[in-house]
Amino acid sequence: MVSAEGGGSRRQIDLNADVGESFGPWTMGDDERLIPLVSSVNIACGAHAGDPATMARTVALAVAHGVAIGAHPGYPDLAGFGRREIDMSAADLEASLIAQIGALEAIARSQGAALRHVKPHGALYNRAARDAILAATIAGAIVRLDRRLVLVGLAGSALLAAGRAAGLDVRAEGFADRAYEPDGTLRDRRRDRAVLEPAAAGAQAVTIARDGRAAADGAAVAIAAETICVHGDAPAAVATATAVRTALAEAGIDVRAP
Amino acid sequence: MVSAEGGGSRRQIDLNADVGESFGPWTMGDDERLIPLVSSVNIACGAHAGDPATMARTVALAVAHGVAIGAHPGYPDLAGFGRREIDMSAADLEASLIAQIGALEAIARSQGAALRHVKPHGALYNRAARDAILAATIAGAIVRLDRRLVLVGLAGSALLAAGRAAGLDVRAEGFADRAYEPDGTLRDRRRDRAVLEPAAAGAQAVTIARDGRAAADGAAVAIAAETICVHGDAPAAVATATAVRTALAEAGIDVRAP
Amino acid sequence: MVSAEGGGSRRQIDLNADVGESFGPWTMGDDERLIPLVSSVNIACGAHAGDPATMARTVALAVAHGVAIGAHPGYPDLAGFGRREIDMSAADLEASLIAQIGALEAIARSQGAALRHVKPHGALYNRAARDAILAATIAGAIVRLDRRLVLVGLAGSALLAAGRAAGLDVRAEGFADRAYEPDGTLRDRRRDRAVLEPAAAGAQAVTIARDGRAAADGAAVAIAAETICVHGDAPAAVATATAVRTALAEAGIDVRAP
Amino acid sequence: MVSAEGGGSRRQIDLNADVGESFGPWTMGDDERLIPLVSSVNIACGAHAGDPATMARTVALAVAHGVAIGAHPGYPDLAGFGRREIDMSAADLEASLIAQIGALEAIARSQGAALRHVKPHGALYNRAARDAILAATIAGAIVRLDRRLVLVGLAGSALLAAGRAAGLDVRAEGFADRAYEPDGTLRDRRRDRAVLEPAAAGAQAVTIARDGRAAADGAAVAIAAETICVHGDAPAAVATATAVRTALAEAGIDVRAP
Repeated sequence: MVSAEGGGSRRQIDLNADVGESFGPWTMGDDERLIPLVSSVNIACGAHAGDPATMARTVALAVAHGVAIGAHPGYPDLAGFGRREIDMSAADLEASLIAQIGALEAIARSQGAALRHVKPHGALYNRAARDAILAATIAGAIVRLDRRLVLVGLAGSALLAAGRAAGLDVRAEGFADRAYEPDGTLRDRRRDRAVLEPAAAGAQAVTIARDGRAAADGAAVAIAAETICVHGDAPAAVATATAVRTALAEAGIDVRAP
Repeated sequence: MVSAEGGGSRRQIDLNADVGESFGPWTMGDDERLIPLVSSVNIACGAHAGDPATMARTVALAVAHGVAIGAHPGYPDLAGFGRREIDMSAADLEASLIAQIGALEAIARSQGAALRHVKPHGALYNRAARDAILAATIAGAIVRLDRRLVLVGLAGSALLAAGRAAGLDVRAEGFADRAYEPDGTLRDRRRDRAVLEPAAAGAQAVTIARDGRAAADGAAVAIAAETICVHGDAPAAVATATAVRTALAEAGIDVRAP
Repeated sequence: MVSAEGGGSRRQIDLNADVGESFGPWTMGDDERLIPLVSSVNIACGAHAGDPATMARTVALAVAHGVAIGAHPGYPDLAGFGRREIDMSAADLEASLIAQIGALEAIARSQGAALRHVKPHGALYNRAARDAILAATIAGAIVRLDRRLVLVGLAGSALLAAGRAAGLDVRAEGFADRAYEPDGTLRDRRRDRAVLEPAAAGAQAVTIARDGRAAADGAAVAIAAETICVHGDAPAAVATATAVRTALAEAGIDVRAP
Repeated sequence: MVSAEGGGSRRQIDLNADVGESFGPWTMGDDERLIPLVSSVNIACGAHAGDPATMARTVALAVAHGVAIGAHPGYPDLAGFGRREIDMSAADLEASLIAQIGALEAIARSQGAALRHVKPHGALYNRAARDAILAATIAGAIVRLDRRLVLVGLAGSALLAAGRAAGLDVRAEGFADRAYEPDGTLRDRRRDRAVLEPAAAGAQAVTIARDGRAAADGAAVAIAAETICVHGDAPAAVATATAVRTALAEAGIDVRAP
């Protein structure tokens, strides 16, 4: 949902990407080309991806391009890339989240930068969208660490509700390159046409940003999003981000971090 | 080396221990009994020991007993417990140190506590005592992160020289329970009588704190230490720390963080 | 369930323990004292516990005491000690199990020993007791690797059913030191009196071995077990194993691997 | 050095590549296209690269293309990709090597395949080329596990000498795509022109295979190699392997595992 500033027709939206997901000798994504195209980045914190040297390089890129830096913590599971649920206790998860965010915050601080937001990754993000107890653990960890951090989560999710209940600023996220179901959830990646082509992603970014809705099997579904994600790990990530930027520009919508 | 306050005979010294070296289901040391006996603790940061939940429990113990909290970063090598040298690049090591210290700092902050010092662990500590380039990398990492952190290292070491050169406050460390060689280095652990019994450790703590020296094969060696370490991972750690406290008290020396 | 040999009153049962669960510098259990008291050991394979050097030392102990060697694979999760469920794909889990068993098998072979059985660990064991699909994945991995390996699982479990269906020899396990519920499941560790004292464990071992039953809240529950586990990671492990051996000896039951 | 069979002009050489170096979600190399071009593969064993599922997929590719399968063990250091020396004890390293080779052997066996050779990776390979004690540890580990495995190492290295002394069959390796120094060592990767272009690699493969020599700064250096490596992790790996195959074919040299 864009903010109409002043009352004129100029609108803006935040565009975010998950970055810093390389590890040691292994590269994922093309952060050098993707980061200049977005206004916010979510940087992996070493648990599901992103060793410290990768974190440092990614922060430096974000600083160089003036994009807002956020933490992207996940389940501690490199081999599973944080996409597998792990049955962690609340105490273990809370400590892990604080350590992950703290590691990135220190790397940012050592480069003169600050963290602005936190967006959980993968299975943690997905489960927290529907599991109120897990969502409260995540929100609580952020409150304990730094209540100025903005919590980013799926529009309409239990995670955002938990963040609001804990007193955090929250930011609802929509997806440019993922198909929605009529109930507002994301179509399962394993289903057909779950991932949109660049042109379709650009069009969906515009309808989300301008109209607060996306198409879902022909019908319209309301998506009240303040930030739009383009996935950094997809082969077409740069093409998608470019198409999204172009479509937003043509629709008169600025890309800008809140 | 004690500070004589006022000019009276009352003196003081910092007593420190390496703690938080458990990992997951595995326990090392008896932190609950050891922490009340010292004035400063060095907490493992997850790379050579200490998962986030262990870090959180250890910080809570330190807060409860009012001891000064420091970070104890090491080479990222759980199986080797940070005791094996790893040929890391300066950039990788710097990023690792900042991430480790940052993770602990965040956990401390989430409990209302702050970090006061940094003491490298194991092979990193030993190598930085004699390798000026490594020492400069460590000092540089701390300067980039937070120049208010005090760097703790072996009395007379290259690490302390690098810290001073980088503008950091440094703190020279002596050892209560380790035998010294006539040249002021520590006797190799694999040699006979390298580790002192509790009573001998108590006596050595007193001569270091009061007189700035230790006995080495009958001769005296100068040890200009502002903090004295009792090892937390030794089976006799609690007995040693108790003996050291008793001996210092009998000698009229207070145990207190600077 | 004991085998009455010949028809006389002399009976026998296998007694097993989970061992080799140390990791790097961290010790768990007292394998040197426990292994001589049992007839079979299940050795951790490096995923939830047990680095290669620990595996080698544990195999050497087992060889020295002439006990049967089995693999004890678990979820790849050191920090969680294999006690947290991880949502692994069947392909990932199968490959992990084969790699874990293979690593231990190679270490045993390099010492002139052979593997005899496989017993899953922790969350994998518990979930496979009731989840037929997971159980089939485990049984299938063993069949693909070496169908002479015996699959050890909870008496009456889905795991044993899957093993039989896959053509494996299976061995039903009972527990000396854990309380049973009237339905034959183990009482949750978090409940009161879930873990039995040494004397009670000895008595339960005898009723399982001799009579095929255990007491559960006053009633008797049938436990058709061919091997009895004493836990190696409990502080009282050696005392419990000693009490169990004494009680079995007094009841005229030999401890022997099948 | 090729074997002239019969006395005619038809010669043969083994062409090998390091493969299976992906990990979890991260891909390295293009094994699907590279494996059909070589006669032997060295598969990472999970310590420096290669999780179990990756190992299983890579073995399946090798089986499908009929290439000889070997183990490619390295220092246990994912973040450093086995390229950093780690100061491991001989006992720790021996156990690690046996566990790594055993894990891969089990995965191969579960697919009906067998291991034929072992080639150390990265810092382990390089250090064992000049460190006789390390070389003896590696050779000893293989002897303890399975003395039928062939040890592959740098032509003229301490590793091959240790293998021969331990009674192993050894195989001397040359490099198609790396420049040699006049003393027969490889030019440091950080120097100019250390890595050869595809055409030059093809030409060097031919001189090594046919003439037992390579060019080094204009002079000729003797390279007595029975297998030639093309690097799998280089961006140009497939192009290089293709050029090498073409050049060898034009020179009448067959590519075949011994």
